[in-house]
Amino acid sequence: MGKTRLEAFSDGVIAIIITIMVLELKVPEGANWKELQQLVPVFMSYLLSFIYIAIYWNNHHHLLHLVKHLSAGIMWSNFNLLFWLSLIPFATGWMGENHFEPLPVALYAVLMNLCGIAYTILQKTIEACHRDDVRLKEIMARQQRKGIMSLLIYTIAVAMAYVSTLISGLLFVTVAAMWLIPDKKIERLVGKDS
Amino acid sequence: MGKTRLEAFSDGVIAIIITIMVLELKVPEGANWKELQQLVPVFMSYLLSFIYIAIYWNNHHHLLHLVKHLSAGIMWSNFNLLFWLSLIPFATGWMGENHFEPLPVALYAVLMNLCGIAYTILQKTIEACHRDDVRLKEIMARQQRKGIMSLLIYTIAVAMAYVSTLISGLLFVTVAAMWLIPDKKIERLVGKDS
Amino acid sequence: MGKTRLEAFSDGVIAIIITIMVLELKVPEGANWKELQQLVPVFMSYLLSFIYIAIYWNNHHHLLHLVKHLSAGIMWSNFNLLFWLSLIPFATGWMGENHFEPLPVALYAVLMNLCGIAYTILQKTIEACHRDDVRLKEIMARQQRKGIMSLLIYTIAVAMAYVSTLISGLLFVTVAAMWLIPDKKIERLVGKDS
Amino acid sequence: MGKTRLEAFSDGVIAIIITIMVLELKVPEGANWKELQQLVPVFMSYLLSFIYIAIYWNNHHHLLHLVKHLSAGIMWSNFNLLFWLSLIPFATGWMGENHFEPLPVALYAVLMNLCGIAYTILQKTIEACHRDDVRLKEIMARQQRKGIMSLLIYTIAVAMAYVSTLISGLLFVTVAAMWLIPDKKIERLVGKDS
Repeated sequence: MGKTRLEAFSDGVIAIIITIMVLELKVPEGANWKELQQLVPVFMSYLLSFIYIAIYWNNHHHLLHLVKHLSAGIMWSNFNLLFWLSLIPFATGWMGENHFEPLPVALYAVLMNLCGIAYTILQKTIEACHRDDVRLKEIMARQQRKGIMSLLIYTIAVAMAYVSTLISGLLFVTVAAMWLIPDKKIERLVGKDS
Repeated sequence: MGKTRLEAFSDGVIAIIITIMVLELKVPEGANWKELQQLVPVFMSYLLSFIYIAIYWNNHHHLLHLVKHLSAGIMWSNFNLLFWLSLIPFATGWMGENHFEPLPVALYAVLMNLCGIAYTILQKTIEACHRDDVRLKEIMARQQRKGIMSLLIYTIAVAMAYVSTLISGLLFVTVAAMWLIPDKKIERLVGKDS
Repeated sequence: MGKTRLEAFSDGVIAIIITIMVLELKVPEGANWKELQQLVPVFMSYLLSFIYIAIYWNNHHHLLHLVKHLSAGIMWSNFNLLFWLSLIPFATGWMGENHFEPLPVALYAVLMNLCGIAYTILQKTIEACHRDDVRLKEIMARQQRKGIMSLLIYTIAVAMAYVSTLISGLLFVTVAAMWLIPDKKIERLVGKDS
Repeated sequence: MGKTRLEAFSDGVIAIIITIMVLELKVPEGANWKELQQLVPVFMSYLLSFIYIAIYWNNHHHLLHLVKHLSAGIMWSNFNLLFWLSLIPFATGWMGENHFEPLPVALYAVLMNLCGIAYTILQKTIEACHRDDVRLKEIMARQQRKGIMSLLIYTIAVAMAYVSTLISGLLFVTVAAMWLIPDKKIERLVGKDS
């Protein structure tokens, strides 16, 4: 019961985050190609963040599916994650509107790191409440390996932003690809009851 | 379980898309008729997109109703659809604020095509997961005929935008009407358990 | 099943409408009393519309509770209602920002009429699908009397806007009060299974 | 049934409130540190309000969990609470953008008081409908003690805004901390069936 409402609330917040982000794609005054071309970086950053948030929703969905009993800790770790996710539209807009300049790209990478850390905290809190669930532990272990790799790549992307923002951008795409390619083992483990 | 949450999330995103679109109807400074008249094209484009999104919601609703088991493919095809739908407020605002000039009208038609293709991909992905469901196949077949016709009409509307945006507009209305007129056969097929 | 999703979708749209309306309360530049005082009309119009939308949600909630089988007609009548409701933030903002000048007040009254008519159409459509439900008919009859009175008062408010917007304002409050005062008879009829 | 929809609607509104607040974090034009630094007060006020709304959601969640039968009174007390909560993004933005000047800080404290009072009214209304539920009474009594203390502290914060806004800020943090520290007794009382 409580879990259903937590899921529903999180879904609501994530749905709003993913959608208000598009408001940064401001309708241009003129009706010509040049105005549209100037929006390309904003569009690219929107696309990237859309995929990231979709991945978060997807993982969050599987993660909460495993929860059997809620605790205040899980509730607040979840809010912590939602807080950092809610800053993505801002970071996305700043990066896009400034055509991927170093500082906004670095900030984006820092925020992605903070989101990743918040997600790891949520995972650890859930794990601590479900010590006896073997399947959950296996799934977690696999996800956490991916999580740590993502954090490492984001950290490199922060530094790279001052060398070449293109490299940072490619690193962002790499992380997204890493999560998008389905992990057969997790699917098998999760799929048993979803 | 997983399906319910996917439906709820999609509904959330679609509800937000349909509603933030109205934010393009910017409150005018003055309180006279002239200011209100200038909003007529924005209003017309809002009305058109509202109907389109309502049709998408309606079809999406029936489509997901048929799903029996979720897969990563269905999840991501659904996100793909939501992504293109999320661009409708932008395209709508651009078309309305520029009083239906050729380029924005053409872009709107292109976006509608992309949404339609994304919907078709989602249909095909669901079909691939439910090969043995005869009723689903019949419903799909009928919907796909409509879908292909819509794509054709949108493609004509792109070209027509540079001849006469009025014709493009009428083509948009035609597609909407085609989907609004209830398909008795589908209703009978779907109605059995909804 | 289908009904639950229709309710959830409507709730989502109404929740967004009621909340984005507050975005018209634009954060003023300065930090003094004068800036705050200028927002009083916007605040008043927000309060009025908040109450109206809350009443609509409440009635909509009871109305859909009575629905036993969905039809395409109910689906589209519901979208029709949501469309007119979605224009309330615009009309509210225009009325508030122009400090209750005649034209915006008249437009607000016209919109309220359109919302009321859309609600009546939804009622009639539901009635047509549930001809054999006696209790539903009784509840509907009572609500429709209130509905017709509301439409009459709104129509007077349109005309009054050009005489005295204060009178129109009082008429708006009157309608709200009429719906807020609980109707014991309906409560008894509805209460049996909610 | 009715309760589920009331919860869902409230969750929707709260999710939107917590998320549109981030829109006050306006994307700056330039891509340098100075622009980012100027956003620090807006960010701080966002963080504070995010925590407050999360606490409200959390308490609201527990409160409605105890409700067994809905009444018109509960419905409207709930709308009253949502109305005041919906003003938080405005007050937050005004406080942040004016770098915590006295008047906006005082207004924020007044609004927090109004939200607290609205919550207390909702509690009392629920209590009045569930006179025979002993466990509910115990939980309520504990929460109301905290509630009254919060109202007192907010009232002091209003006055303190004209002495030192730092003190008001610390008082806000104090209230948040008071609610964040889990109340073991309530958890035990609530935990039995959630």
